[in-house]
Amino acid sequence: MTLFRTEHDLLGYREVPADVYYGVHTLRAKENFQISGITVSTYPELIFSLAAVKQAAAEANHALGLLPEQKYQAIAAACEEVRKGALHDQFVVDVIQGGAGTSTNMNANEVICNRALEILGHQKGEYQYLHPNEDVNMAQSTNDVYPTAIRIATCLGVHRLLQAMDHLRAEFAAKAVEFAGLLKIGRTQLQDAVPMTLGQEFSTYALMLEEDMERLRRAELLIREINLGATAIGTGITSHPAYAAKALAALRTITGIDLSTAPNLIEATQDCGDFVQLSGVLKRIAVKLSKICNDLRLLSSGPRAGFGEINLPAMQAGSSIMPGKVNPVIPEVVNQIAFEVFGNDLTVTFAAEGGQLQLNAFEPIIASALFRSFKYLTNGCDTLAELCIKGITANPAKLLANMENSIALVTALNPYIGYEAATSVASEAYANGTSVREVVLARKLMTPVQLDQALRHEVLTQPWAYNIEHLTSEPPATPSTEKL
Amino acid sequence: MTLFRTEHDLLGYREVPADVYYGVHTLRAKENFQISGITVSTYPELIFSLAAVKQAAAEANHALGLLPEQKYQAIAAACEEVRKGALHDQFVVDVIQGGAGTSTNMNANEVICNRALEILGHQKGEYQYLHPNEDVNMAQSTNDVYPTAIRIATCLGVHRLLQAMDHLRAEFAAKAVEFAGLLKIGRTQLQDAVPMTLGQEFSTYALMLEEDMERLRRAELLIREINLGATAIGTGITSHPAYAAKALAALRTITGIDLSTAPNLIEATQDCGDFVQLSGVLKRIAVKLSKICNDLRLLSSGPRAGFGEINLPAMQAGSSIMPGKVNPVIPEVVNQIAFEVFGNDLTVTFAAEGGQLQLNAFEPIIASALFRSFKYLTNGCDTLAELCIKGITANPAKLLANMENSIALVTALNPYIGYEAATSVASEAYANGTSVREVVLARKLMTPVQLDQALRHEVLTQPWAYNIEHLTSEPPATPSTEKL
Amino acid sequence: MTLFRTEHDLLGYREVPADVYYGVHTLRAKENFQISGITVSTYPELIFSLAAVKQAAAEANHALGLLPEQKYQAIAAACEEVRKGALHDQFVVDVIQGGAGTSTNMNANEVICNRALEILGHQKGEYQYLHPNEDVNMAQSTNDVYPTAIRIATCLGVHRLLQAMDHLRAEFAAKAVEFAGLLKIGRTQLQDAVPMTLGQEFSTYALMLEEDMERLRRAELLIREINLGATAIGTGITSHPAYAAKALAALRTITGIDLSTAPNLIEATQDCGDFVQLSGVLKRIAVKLSKICNDLRLLSSGPRAGFGEINLPAMQAGSSIMPGKVNPVIPEVVNQIAFEVFGNDLTVTFAAEGGQLQLNAFEPIIASALFRSFKYLTNGCDTLAELCIKGITANPAKLLANMENSIALVTALNPYIGYEAATSVASEAYANGTSVREVVLARKLMTPVQLDQALRHEVLTQPWAYNIEHLTSEPPATPSTEKL
Amino acid sequence: MTLFRTEHDLLGYREVPADVYYGVHTLRAKENFQISGITVSTYPELIFSLAAVKQAAAEANHALGLLPEQKYQAIAAACEEVRKGALHDQFVVDVIQGGAGTSTNMNANEVICNRALEILGHQKGEYQYLHPNEDVNMAQSTNDVYPTAIRIATCLGVHRLLQAMDHLRAEFAAKAVEFAGLLKIGRTQLQDAVPMTLGQEFSTYALMLEEDMERLRRAELLIREINLGATAIGTGITSHPAYAAKALAALRTITGIDLSTAPNLIEATQDCGDFVQLSGVLKRIAVKLSKICNDLRLLSSGPRAGFGEINLPAMQAGSSIMPGKVNPVIPEVVNQIAFEVFGNDLTVTFAAEGGQLQLNAFEPIIASALFRSFKYLTNGCDTLAELCIKGITANPAKLLANMENSIALVTALNPYIGYEAATSVASEAYANGTSVREVVLARKLMTPVQLDQALRHEVLTQPWAYNIEHLTSEPPATPSTEKL
Repeated sequence: MTLFRTEHDLLGYREVPADVYYGVHTLRAKENFQISGITVSTYPELIFSLAAVKQAAAEANHALGLLPEQKYQAIAAACEEVRKGALHDQFVVDVIQGGAGTSTNMNANEVICNRALEILGHQKGEYQYLHPNEDVNMAQSTNDVYPTAIRIATCLGVHRLLQAMDHLRAEFAAKAVEFAGLLKIGRTQLQDAVPMTLGQEFSTYALMLEEDMERLRRAELLIREINLGATAIGTGITSHPAYAAKALAALRTITGIDLSTAPNLIEATQDCGDFVQLSGVLKRIAVKLSKICNDLRLLSSGPRAGFGEINLPAMQAGSSIMPGKVNPVIPEVVNQIAFEVFGNDLTVTFAAEGGQLQLNAFEPIIASALFRSFKYLTNGCDTLAELCIKGITANPAKLLANMENSIALVTALNPYIGYEAATSVASEAYANGTSVREVVLARKLMTPVQLDQALRHEVLTQPWAYNIEHLTSEPPATPSTEKL
Repeated sequence: MTLFRTEHDLLGYREVPADVYYGVHTLRAKENFQISGITVSTYPELIFSLAAVKQAAAEANHALGLLPEQKYQAIAAACEEVRKGALHDQFVVDVIQGGAGTSTNMNANEVICNRALEILGHQKGEYQYLHPNEDVNMAQSTNDVYPTAIRIATCLGVHRLLQAMDHLRAEFAAKAVEFAGLLKIGRTQLQDAVPMTLGQEFSTYALMLEEDMERLRRAELLIREINLGATAIGTGITSHPAYAAKALAALRTITGIDLSTAPNLIEATQDCGDFVQLSGVLKRIAVKLSKICNDLRLLSSGPRAGFGEINLPAMQAGSSIMPGKVNPVIPEVVNQIAFEVFGNDLTVTFAAEGGQLQLNAFEPIIASALFRSFKYLTNGCDTLAELCIKGITANPAKLLANMENSIALVTALNPYIGYEAATSVASEAYANGTSVREVVLARKLMTPVQLDQALRHEVLTQPWAYNIEHLTSEPPATPSTEKL
Repeated sequence: MTLFRTEHDLLGYREVPADVYYGVHTLRAKENFQISGITVSTYPELIFSLAAVKQAAAEANHALGLLPEQKYQAIAAACEEVRKGALHDQFVVDVIQGGAGTSTNMNANEVICNRALEILGHQKGEYQYLHPNEDVNMAQSTNDVYPTAIRIATCLGVHRLLQAMDHLRAEFAAKAVEFAGLLKIGRTQLQDAVPMTLGQEFSTYALMLEEDMERLRRAELLIREINLGATAIGTGITSHPAYAAKALAALRTITGIDLSTAPNLIEATQDCGDFVQLSGVLKRIAVKLSKICNDLRLLSSGPRAGFGEINLPAMQAGSSIMPGKVNPVIPEVVNQIAFEVFGNDLTVTFAAEGGQLQLNAFEPIIASALFRSFKYLTNGCDTLAELCIKGITANPAKLLANMENSIALVTALNPYIGYEAATSVASEAYANGTSVREVVLARKLMTPVQLDQALRHEVLTQPWAYNIEHLTSEPPATPSTEKL
Repeated sequence: MTLFRTEHDLLGYREVPADVYYGVHTLRAKENFQISGITVSTYPELIFSLAAVKQAAAEANHALGLLPEQKYQAIAAACEEVRKGALHDQFVVDVIQGGAGTSTNMNANEVICNRALEILGHQKGEYQYLHPNEDVNMAQSTNDVYPTAIRIATCLGVHRLLQAMDHLRAEFAAKAVEFAGLLKIGRTQLQDAVPMTLGQEFSTYALMLEEDMERLRRAELLIREINLGATAIGTGITSHPAYAAKALAALRTITGIDLSTAPNLIEATQDCGDFVQLSGVLKRIAVKLSKICNDLRLLSSGPRAGFGEINLPAMQAGSSIMPGKVNPVIPEVVNQIAFEVFGNDLTVTFAAEGGQLQLNAFEPIIASALFRSFKYLTNGCDTLAELCIKGITANPAKLLANMENSIALVTALNPYIGYEAATSVASEAYANGTSVREVVLARKLMTPVQLDQALRHEVLTQPWAYNIEHLTSEPPATPSTEKL
């Protein structure tokens, strides 16, 4: 039994373990790039996408009479197996690799070729019957295959992230309903501001997610434009004139994604603008998630010496030294995911800016950074939804007391007593530790009935839903003689 | 003659120079924020926008019977003057300021109020007749006025940048036509690749700009959604139920921009997602510009020991020590603009992430960073178009020699002789310093006629436009016995 | 009277306004770079440094017999005038410029040359008597003059920033003393943790500043290594063998800074590592300042619905709509300075990474970004010290109540009752809204005397200063049978 | 046989698989944080460091009479096993985790405790005999254990990176010697500049590395300052007064690293400045590596239509479509490592800035980002040294031709004929495609002998090593009448 088979490339002959499906090109790449220890096999969507592209290319070449029936059938069968999850462990190249993705493409060519050879009844490595470059890679270049595969994988990443975001959005929306009746004080610049409901606070988070989902869907539209058929630099050299259109049609069927071919393939081959744009949208999502988690940590700060308006569900003991301490670990992990996404976005920016002339050699790190962001954000949204938002409870008494105790309530009286008088009332209440109500009544600026009317809860949080007669009947009497 | 007038605020009394239009709030802000030495007056679009908002608010309040005719007329007249360029020097607050823009809003209130007082026949500071907060700021808060003004100013910035980008795009397109017939070698990973034309290279740049313009237009659509009517936190407290709609209508008329009111004002008041998105698009534009300038500098490297394919127009002596040296100073300045935009994008990201609860206190730095990016990119595009692209010339002889000398030409023979044979040809040509043509003929892999046919210039750069009979008649004979 | 004089350069003849001191090179640069509208004249330290370098070079060349006495005297006199502040308005080139600083160097050459010509009794532009390039720039290149000048200017920037940081440090230290006796609850992850004093909190900020000052001093040491004498690429071409040493000696005397010459001038001419390092230290400082300001805003949140432990001095009315609201505007502006510094650091990183072969063409944006960071941080520290920290007051009652009310106090009992028992106590206190003390006594885990002893204020905040006998006499009895 | 054992914590009872060494806290953390799928076990240095800290703490507590002999011996033995590589697979918590590292610390406590229990002859989970929190974690908090462990692991990372950098430095230095005699044209701003040797170019890279190594060593000094003994917030609560000193001594012995205790533990517990600084140094290293790789790719561009001055060793076939193409894959992978490090640095910055009050909750992502940077940079340096630099060859003919053909040679004539005359010579040579030598002789500006003397190779690249008599005997005759 032979343990090795011999393969050759530009550089000479090498022994490849007899049982592996990859070949000499992959072997060299594996040796050359020992950087992260994380292999392409950790991105199943990318492997799926590579196999889909290879299958579509074979179908197009076959339809054009360039790839014989038997070869085509074998390649297609091998691709289907890989798409269904087979042989992923044969994708052994490091995700951080030089060469603009050539090694990943070569790896795919070799694995699919050797599996197809077996299907044809040959041995692995008998490339005289089916060749990784001449058959599996026919009419293709890394420079169109690899970005096309990244784009398909990215679309799949978008779909999963959208699900997770919708999961999170739904939990926020549910809390918005649950907390709709709980009045609280709003805060601007961390200072007490005017009233709102806790439900409004949570509905805001739901809406933020919703808007981000829409932006993500839009960014995906850009990503769906592929350059398959460009071959080396976009001129389509070595491919049949009808190839690009046929390959596209096949790829749309195989993936079920509404892909299209870029109108200018030279531009599409060197341009990474859409990846930068998509990364920017992921950054936007991360900004929002981080902001929301900062808020959740603030609102649940305490339990006694903080804001204490809401309680996050206890997920684990918070301290190895402080007994009974429970920490906001889930929001904290999401904050950290956001920081990671910010870093990934910068990596994408550097890589995109570094592209030169007809190709961006740094697409592997762009792909790696994007895939990482997708994975972490998806897991982060699901985790936040399930392990935190779903279990949040409110502290109604604290919420109400904070609101009624607030000096900023005086804002609601602006239309009645004017900004200057209101400023004076606020100053006195603050200085003496009393309430706005007390000062207004003591100064006889309004009657108790007027005051009750102006400070009705509904009016405070949804002023436009109520007809404020006073306002419409006459302009407010500006008490301009009022002194500070 | 009095040199000062006395004004008061929450903190007490202050003397304000008698001739200035701003008041006590602005004075304190001027003193508090001595950071950059750059005042809001350097952003005329922002001042225009603030005046537009104030005018629209006054119009709405007047229509609702809340602001008397005379006051309204005076405020509107003052706003029109400011919109037309008057009193911009009175906007003296530093662009880097605490307080979420309150100082800029207060500055606008005071300048407009004092100018309106003069129009009414009063003295500056006689706020008993017209009050900065109670009249000019009626039904408003910094928290809706300021972001609305930033958004309008941003739309104006987008329009100017689009003009400059189109200017640059047009120059690239003109060069694409001029250079359409010049064959050259394409390069991937800085290594010689397959042929193309210099015109194709330049048309790519034109198209990149075009795509970015489309992305910018899309991002502007998001920015047009304003939160005027939100007042302090989005509940609309102190404003009339019909105010937001009327103010929007007025603002659309005044600015001519297709603005709309955000559906959820609480969310719109605290959310900076659209600024992050817009900044991301500016970053994308900067990535492209920087990439293009890197390419231009590469292609013009030399004059003798570099690529030397094109010549940038000489704009100035390049060296204080090396006589006759001319440097690519215009692309270099655009690279640096890109680096600045990357920095600004990071600043926006930090500021957006730092928002808490019902407001983002850091909008001033977001505005400042965005306005700077707009200005620099606009100037950069115009400069690059006019002082560089327009004057570029080509070195046809060098271009052609590089192409014909290239080993990578062999790629075009893949469909005829196969990848493995072609690899062997390339290796021999490289090792012996000969040409692909010579090796192919020496090995009798193709006839001279076949070779001429396969390497026709038109076929190399636009293969799909030509019917490659050989390909369609029979599959390529894979010379699999060919050895390395 | 002539309005213009004619000058020429590589590109031809140009009319220069007769009264300006700059010449044709500057004129072209002014026209070429219309980007930011901010001219080099806004960086007086840079102009000082350029004049210092020119003076030192002239002194060295004169000492070597290469520059005649009369020319030397005139150049030196002109340099002294510029160093003292004269003619700064003649430095009209945009801070964002292509050409690796050539235009700024040319500007300096021309201004100094024309002023020296006047001193010699000639007219501006009569370069046959004294030449900007051949005399003022003798033995120099932009590539050594410009980085040397940036480095000197940076040293000056460091010195001013250190003063401002020390100012801020001193204010924190003063508050640390003032608040030394005020007990409070510490917080980790925004949750109540164990006790400390407010003085300890502020002394931490003082120490952070102190450490950062030390880091800044260290980074300055690197910056003091200059490449004067490198000329174009570091080989020293056109300069006398003894020039570098003599120029260094003169420059040390003129500036009073302990400069040295880099051991390898080729490396020093292309390397921007020290600027990256320095920018990293500025980023570190910004991280700390932002963190401190975040804390200050948290601790002063309220006044009623927040942490409310300290009060920041009121600097201005906080809201145009919410009467009496006072916002933490000074910390907010410092946060924004930090965000700007983060952006600048990224700009520096991109520019440094973009350097190619023997020179970094992007030093102008590196200089601009660094100078901006220095200026803003300096102003930010002074502003924070003077307008915020100095006026902070504490709310002792709130501080004490928060501490005594805290469940996390139970941590201090770990050594007495064990982590598991303490966890159980904490859980009960939290669930029932009672205090740790009550639960411990109810469960008879400790006697009142023991409890008082364990919870003495001094022990809580400085446990190591007190001999805890119980601990040293016997190991704690682990109440392992205690159930949750 | 039982498959599970029951453990409890604050939240209740859970079944833990009987055979695992971690306990209920780890189990919950494992479930809570399903983000990256990368567990703490991928950082062996961190696990080593955690075990070292636990061992040192046990030794200190034992010496103070707080931890009985038998317990101490068991804990120490378990720690030694873990330090030597045992049980690393039991560290199952995700590297991206909330809770400031609590879960990692709890994981360490539980694994060490259960292994120690076995050593003592008990079953896993029989915490009545030895308790994870009360014994293994005695006198400790996550807040001092975790940062201390990160710091030790970071020191180990520094040591390995220094080795790899020195490896790379040595290869550059070897090439500097090998190429010492090869003259070439230097380039500034990608334009031909003055001569140098290829050896000088490579010695520059060696020196850059050397300088960065020194910066890294300095940054490590800061990292060696630990906060062990701080416990929860730095007050040292629950620890014995003599504990910190004894634990430090033990830890120094165990690790062999020159650690020290921070003078102010409250500051040290919340401050992440040193991590920011260290990350900044890693960024600096990445900037240099990326710059160097950009240069290598430029210098080896071609093989025919580029600079073509050097040849990188061929590591793999460069293209799946272009036969014989070889790409600079190793420099490309190092560029991408740099982009990753830039991203990690940004992640660290965000995480550091986000720390609040007495603790930074985001240390896990700081650790993760730093460890990733260390790993990739270390592998990148070794890869670049071994697979690229070592095999670089030069193209002497091309180097020499480029140099002799260069117009910029005229710079060397400045001291003889002046800048203006030299400019004129350069212009003519450029316009007519002739050489500097030809024009100078035709104009009779210098004699052939003078010219030979001035352009001697040694003088061009090391002018200071040669006594240029002309210069020292008399000042150059400035041919100021020379016209452009």
